[in-house]
Amino acid sequence: MKGKLIVFEGVEGCGKTSQIQLTQEWLLSFQTSVVVTRQPGGTELGLYLRKLLLEAGSHSIIDKTELLLYAADRSQHVEQVIKPALQDGAIVLCDRYTHSTIAYQGWGRGLDINLIDQLNTIATSGLESDLTLWFDVDVEVGLARKRGGGDILDRIEKETIAFHRRVQQGYAHLADSHPEQIVRVDGSLSQEAVQQKIQAILTARLEAWIDEKKDNLDLAP
Amino acid sequence: MKGKLIVFEGVEGCGKTSQIQLTQEWLLSFQTSVVVTRQPGGTELGLYLRKLLLEAGSHSIIDKTELLLYAADRSQHVEQVIKPALQDGAIVLCDRYTHSTIAYQGWGRGLDINLIDQLNTIATSGLESDLTLWFDVDVEVGLARKRGGGDILDRIEKETIAFHRRVQQGYAHLADSHPEQIVRVDGSLSQEAVQQKIQAILTARLEAWIDEKKDNLDLAP
Repeated sequence: MKGKLIVFEGVEGCGKTSQIQLTQEWLLSFQTSVVVTRQPGGTELGLYLRKLLLEAGSHSIIDKTELLLYAADRSQHVEQVIKPALQDGAIVLCDRYTHSTIAYQGWGRGLDINLIDQLNTIATSGLESDLTLWFDVDVEVGLARKRGGGDILDRIEKETIAFHRRVQQGYAHLADSHPEQIVRVDGSLSQEAVQQKIQAILTARLEAWIDEKKDNLDLAP
Repeated sequence: MKGKLIVFEGVEGCGKTSQIQLTQEWLLSFQTSVVVTRQPGGTELGLYLRKLLLEAGSHSIIDKTELLLYAADRSQHVEQVIKPALQDGAIVLCDRYTHSTIAYQGWGRGLDINLIDQLNTIATSGLESDLTLWFDVDVEVGLARKRGGGDILDRIEKETIAFHRRVQQGYAHLADSHPEQIVRVDGSLSQEAVQQKIQAILTARLEAWIDEKKDNLDLAP
């Protein structure tokens, strides 16, 4: 894989979706190939699944079914979108990935983390993010942002505050236990300040990745 | 679980769906609670998934995603329909179950059987059929029946003859390796003759199950 997978994670209203757009614009000023995508809903099939998962319809979805539907969306997305883009050398900016499932379904709903790990591995064939940016914002601040936006709330956004607090704890735990892969960004700062942090983090990483590439080329026979 | 799960399996056009109806009518003459259901599509959510899985739309579905969608359908169906019915003491007649996935996705599509077993166990929480009736019919005869019916063929029915032959081999292998659980029924006989065979098999099993129950009651303190 020649490209890099950079994932944006966090609770509702953490600002990740706006930051992805800003990051894309910044990256495009010096990197020709940037792909912005999301889970769930990053493929045509995924759009149907996103609707099933997030629109509070008359049908009820049991927790384990929800987990399997996220895995189905992810499997399709990794094979159809992420892997081909990485093979083309693109930087892929993905709105949510495997850590969302650990935080929301594992910590939020209390589903077995081993089962989630197992399904994440099946769905991604083991493809992990090169870098995950976790936008750490107080859950009440985040939800107030969402609710203030006037959008109709989806099934997840409608969950209790206690649920979103557990999700937040999940992210904190993940960031603690994967310090190289997951970098915390203070999401309570202004949009400009957050974007500056992201650019600083990515500049350092991109340089390191370029150095790695050079080393590999130097070592090549 | 007080009830019994009886699964009807076989290639396209094997006659299982008509036989389920006849078996239900016969069972209802002496057993008050009989539930007829199917996979995929035995729940409200499952109907959406069945549509995604079987209608050849513009979206393509990769093999692993297909497997995860069948597992999602199954998980919802086991929890919402099968387990509650068994707990109420019903006889559940189910059109396709875990063995379909082994035969179609494993043998037909060549997906890893260990992965399928893993997903079947996750989706069912280990609930296996008490009895599976496998309707063994030549795949060309079965497909001719389907095609003669004038219905629009679904994604699976449109597969090549070679695919359906591999599915048939899968069923034969499963029946060989699970002789107690899977009973072969010659699906090339007339509808009446097949129904008589089913009634003979079920009469013997029901008697054995009643004896088991009695023994358990006798042994109870």
